[in-house]
Amino acid sequence: MPGSKHIIPHTVNPDLEQERHGASFRVDEFARWWHGGAAKLRFKRELEQEMFNDMTEHNTLLHYKSHEEISEIALRQSLEVAKKLRAMQQRINPGGNDIWPKLYSAAAVWGAMPGGNPFGVHFVMMVEAIRTQGTDEQWERFGKRAENFEICGTYAQTELGHGSFLRGLETRADYDRATGEFVLNTPKLSAYKWWPGGLGHCSNYCLLVAQLYIDDEPKGLQMFFVQLRDEETHMPLPGIDIGEIGHKRGFYGVSNGFLGLKNVRIPRTNMLMRNAKVQPDGTFVKSPASVLTYFTMVMMRCVVTRDNATLLAMAATIATRYSAVRRQSPINPNEREPQIMDHVTQQLKLFPEIANAIAYQLSANKLWSLYHETYVDIERGDFTRLPELHNLSCVMKALCTADCNVGAERLRLACGGHGYLTSANMHLIVSSAAAACSYEGENTVLLLQVGRFLMKSWRAATEGKPLTPTASYLRGPARGETFGKWTGEWANIVAAIEYAAANKVRLAFESMSQRLAQGQTEAEAANGTGIELTQAAELHGRSFVAATFLAYVTGPTVSERSAALNRVLERLLELYLVHTALRHLSDILQCISLSDAELRSLQTRLESVLKKIRPDAVAIVDGFDFHDRCLSSALGSYDGNVYERLFDLAKQSPLNQEPVPKSFHKVLKPFLKSNL
Amino acid sequence: MPGSKHIIPHTVNPDLEQERHGASFRVDEFARWWHGGAAKLRFKRELEQEMFNDMTEHNTLLHYKSHEEISEIALRQSLEVAKKLRAMQQRINPGGNDIWPKLYSAAAVWGAMPGGNPFGVHFVMMVEAIRTQGTDEQWERFGKRAENFEICGTYAQTELGHGSFLRGLETRADYDRATGEFVLNTPKLSAYKWWPGGLGHCSNYCLLVAQLYIDDEPKGLQMFFVQLRDEETHMPLPGIDIGEIGHKRGFYGVSNGFLGLKNVRIPRTNMLMRNAKVQPDGTFVKSPASVLTYFTMVMMRCVVTRDNATLLAMAATIATRYSAVRRQSPINPNEREPQIMDHVTQQLKLFPEIANAIAYQLSANKLWSLYHETYVDIERGDFTRLPELHNLSCVMKALCTADCNVGAERLRLACGGHGYLTSANMHLIVSSAAAACSYEGENTVLLLQVGRFLMKSWRAATEGKPLTPTASYLRGPARGETFGKWTGEWANIVAAIEYAAANKVRLAFESMSQRLAQGQTEAEAANGTGIELTQAAELHGRSFVAATFLAYVTGPTVSERSAALNRVLERLLELYLVHTALRHLSDILQCISLSDAELRSLQTRLESVLKKIRPDAVAIVDGFDFHDRCLSSALGSYDGNVYERLFDLAKQSPLNQEPVPKSFHKVLKPFLKSNL
Repeated sequence: MPGSKHIIPHTVNPDLEQERHGASFRVDEFARWWHGGAAKLRFKRELEQEMFNDMTEHNTLLHYKSHEEISEIALRQSLEVAKKLRAMQQRINPGGNDIWPKLYSAAAVWGAMPGGNPFGVHFVMMVEAIRTQGTDEQWERFGKRAENFEICGTYAQTELGHGSFLRGLETRADYDRATGEFVLNTPKLSAYKWWPGGLGHCSNYCLLVAQLYIDDEPKGLQMFFVQLRDEETHMPLPGIDIGEIGHKRGFYGVSNGFLGLKNVRIPRTNMLMRNAKVQPDGTFVKSPASVLTYFTMVMMRCVVTRDNATLLAMAATIATRYSAVRRQSPINPNEREPQIMDHVTQQLKLFPEIANAIAYQLSANKLWSLYHETYVDIERGDFTRLPELHNLSCVMKALCTADCNVGAERLRLACGGHGYLTSANMHLIVSSAAAACSYEGENTVLLLQVGRFLMKSWRAATEGKPLTPTASYLRGPARGETFGKWTGEWANIVAAIEYAAANKVRLAFESMSQRLAQGQTEAEAANGTGIELTQAAELHGRSFVAATFLAYVTGPTVSERSAALNRVLERLLELYLVHTALRHLSDILQCISLSDAELRSLQTRLESVLKKIRPDAVAIVDGFDFHDRCLSSALGSYDGNVYERLFDLAKQSPLNQEPVPKSFHKVLKPFLKSNL
Repeated sequence: MPGSKHIIPHTVNPDLEQERHGASFRVDEFARWWHGGAAKLRFKRELEQEMFNDMTEHNTLLHYKSHEEISEIALRQSLEVAKKLRAMQQRINPGGNDIWPKLYSAAAVWGAMPGGNPFGVHFVMMVEAIRTQGTDEQWERFGKRAENFEICGTYAQTELGHGSFLRGLETRADYDRATGEFVLNTPKLSAYKWWPGGLGHCSNYCLLVAQLYIDDEPKGLQMFFVQLRDEETHMPLPGIDIGEIGHKRGFYGVSNGFLGLKNVRIPRTNMLMRNAKVQPDGTFVKSPASVLTYFTMVMMRCVVTRDNATLLAMAATIATRYSAVRRQSPINPNEREPQIMDHVTQQLKLFPEIANAIAYQLSANKLWSLYHETYVDIERGDFTRLPELHNLSCVMKALCTADCNVGAERLRLACGGHGYLTSANMHLIVSSAAAACSYEGENTVLLLQVGRFLMKSWRAATEGKPLTPTASYLRGPARGETFGKWTGEWANIVAAIEYAAANKVRLAFESMSQRLAQGQTEAEAANGTGIELTQAAELHGRSFVAATFLAYVTGPTVSERSAALNRVLERLLELYLVHTALRHLSDILQCISLSDAELRSLQTRLESVLKKIRPDAVAIVDGFDFHDRCLSSALGSYDGNVYERLFDLAKQSPLNQEPVPKSFHKVLKPFLKSNL
């Protein structure tokens, strides 16, 4: 009877070995491709080695501890990672910033901070905002101190009463001409800052987003650099009410905080003034380009999209490996129970999510390219591509996080009961994905924005005006062109999804027009048409992902990959397109007619491609090249010693360290005896 | 600046008051209807009063504690509830069992055990199984002791390696004729019992499900009453390896456990022998009716269905109240921000889930009636209705838990970022629903069973043989009858869903037949057709729910309700049917043609009925009559003081009890200083 830590074999589960042996392509080629080349893959592995080499305890054991303990551990671990990254930067590329702080929130280091990183926002947002929105003098005065981690802070925007609707923020900064100071206040409870990561107990400064008032006249949102706590004692400064907002579904150690301000005074020169300015006499100088303030949010949405594709790939890796190890329910009676991955219904849970993760990763790459191109444009004063980037980042963030949330949960369920165990780590991955649906722009709010953009695009299309590249598929339908014939070829499926998207846009536009004709305001009509607008936006985003995946797999990069790898990618594309067509079948059938045989063929193709992917499934997720510590899952480790690891981790529960818990004598025994 | 516990007003949020004032029906009538009459409602409230009156701390504060602490609190609280229920039973109906132990797992007392109940399985399954499967002598010997709570135990069936596939269980009980004992073993790690609630540290006995062997010949699964721990010391007995399986996504305090057995001997008379028997000489007497063993599982699935409808109603209550209090994003610029429930997209998140909860509750009621009728039949030796009940309980359990999981998460997301806070309690409700998708029969496994039942039914239908009542809609389509005309009336929509279900059944049957014709075995063909089988099962279940809801709202009970209440129920039915038709639109369009205008009309009806339900939404969820402690949500309390409650609960975080956490001096300060 096994009962100790030494029960985990040093061998790989034979079923998993068999899977790897039977793959039709080389996993190392897949991994190099996935990570952008051999050098990048090698560096990622070196980074993981450096981050994880001295970690001994399984990450999921964290969850036996109290909230206070977890918070302290998260603090320690995040600083440990900072030290290691700085040391690597120093060793590999002294003076650069490509490792530190750039990789502080990268997926490869997540495994070193299972409680989350309370200083992520400090680097990703606060330091960056001071750099881009502050003056040189401000950068010298406090930006560098923040960058050097002498002080720690956060970006305090969201309030208890307002999130995605920024104009509704209630924190105010009143300019006092007499003293040359801003007076900061959260005039009521709903104005309290609420949510910023690290704000609770891991910040002594923050970048405060507040409504600027001069002579009680509002001047719009501005950013203010505010000291919150004494650097020596960490005591909150006068007028500051600060703390953490409490336990959450995930990110336990991130110290999300609240902040109330009562007549807190800061010097005028603490407002970030690279763009908008307040002069000593109270004259307000507007920003020359207000779009700049939201460019950071665009960047964040690109980050969120990429990270969520990674979360989905992590969940898919765990569930796929487990499905190769778990054997259950004979298909033919009296035969050996098959790997559960041989059940077709299980394949349908796993493989479309693998394809989704890849489709979103490729789309995120494309989004990043567009981001960098637009960045260069903007530096040259050319803002023409910004609306497209903005809307694309909105819809991609919304779709990817929503699909990742649903998909990761589907994969968790695909692990059966064991997927519910913390030692499986699945629900913690789902929890991270779930959070992303609400932060950096609530998904429905984002889809509605994109829907309104599509209304403008449709009008432009009907008027023959130019369209942004990703909306150019609207042109034909707006001219009244019909779809033509369903052939079911890849390009034809992409065209069908685009046509269905255009049809939804048209329907929404007609509903809008009808409401306007009835005398509703534009805003009322948009609200009334909200459901159709979000549906149109969803299909618009799906078209982009499908077109991107198709272009990638059939485009010029084909020659860079082996025939074997291309075949695997083609199967994943086939699955993605067929599955997406079935998912949106009612949208397609509303504007394109498919015969019974054609419908049948979609179902057959689905079943057929699942079968083709089956022998390569483990190798594909191996190709994502997740480190075991990144997955932190008893179900998903590379060696597939699933039951031994589940058992080993259970044995490490604090409650299992003694045969009889104290509570028996204190609580249970007296009760049972009283019933004799 | 508010900073103390006294910030919660004693008044009701004016927006909520306004909502209640504007409702078109009487909430008290709804509540009486929902709870089955005035007497039942009164009793439920009395019960809650009794359970909750001395509880002072908010339930969600539990989650700041360590796993060990939570386990002890859950143990204490569950015993406290037991004492209170027994006292109530004694006071109200001495000698009965309608309160104790019957209500030990009822929704009305969940709020008294936020960590879960480690003794739920003891009463719901172990005591019941001994009563129904044990002999009178066994009931006297140990059943009564268990019922009297002198001992505590669990029902140990699931193993590390096997769950839903019962025949695969590996724990064995070998009969030793020489000593008249069974020798119990878990021959390998995957045979360990794994999951049973309470097994970890809250059981000194269990009902063990094991493969009976006589002379190494398997005789099928039997139940054995086994002592696990010493009654005085709670020390595990020799040969017993026992503990808890560790931290999970939810049910933190339920002490789900593992159990390994090595040559543990129990007397022959500890096998439950009301049906199957082992005589002293080793002669095995088969059970006269093997169906009886799975009747408990049927009952459990009815319980799970009802409980999950309740969880969905809880989540809907919280999200709806919050949506009446939260104001965000003006519809018309320069107007006041509306309650977010005025955004149509928000209505689409909330109201269909309210309708779902009601539809599932009514269907669960119908399922329970069928259960009781079948129970009476079986007592009379009539098993004819059992297959229908079995399949109906499978599909209802699978659909209701899956929809509740998705629906509760949708409602959590509808609360925006705040829905992520533990103080909102939403994610804990979702976690409970999520668990139910895997336990008591994994959902996909259940749907596949129902799919195979539908294949038999289709064959019977084509051969003109009798059909069970809930599958009788297959008769017409099996004869080749077409749908007729889409009119969009309620009965017509139900018929369309049934017709689409029949069409899926037909398609799956054809796929099966084709695979059989290709030489596949029945089992291989069923696996290959798995996707279509589950889709058919899903639509079959949906038909039952839709038909049940329709029959209820338009049937003879109409006269028992006021016109105002009937109008509300009609709107909820309209929403349910239109929403379900849109959800399954591609299935419908594959076999029924709808014109553009008819499609348009579905969308218009959806928007129109959302608008009609809007003024009654708060009153409807009020009518569910959840006690604040049952909801345990800062977002969903009756008074709607959302922001004050969020703030109050944040202030109660242990980390907020001191202005500076200890970790600052130990960890953060030395790090920051080292960077100077």
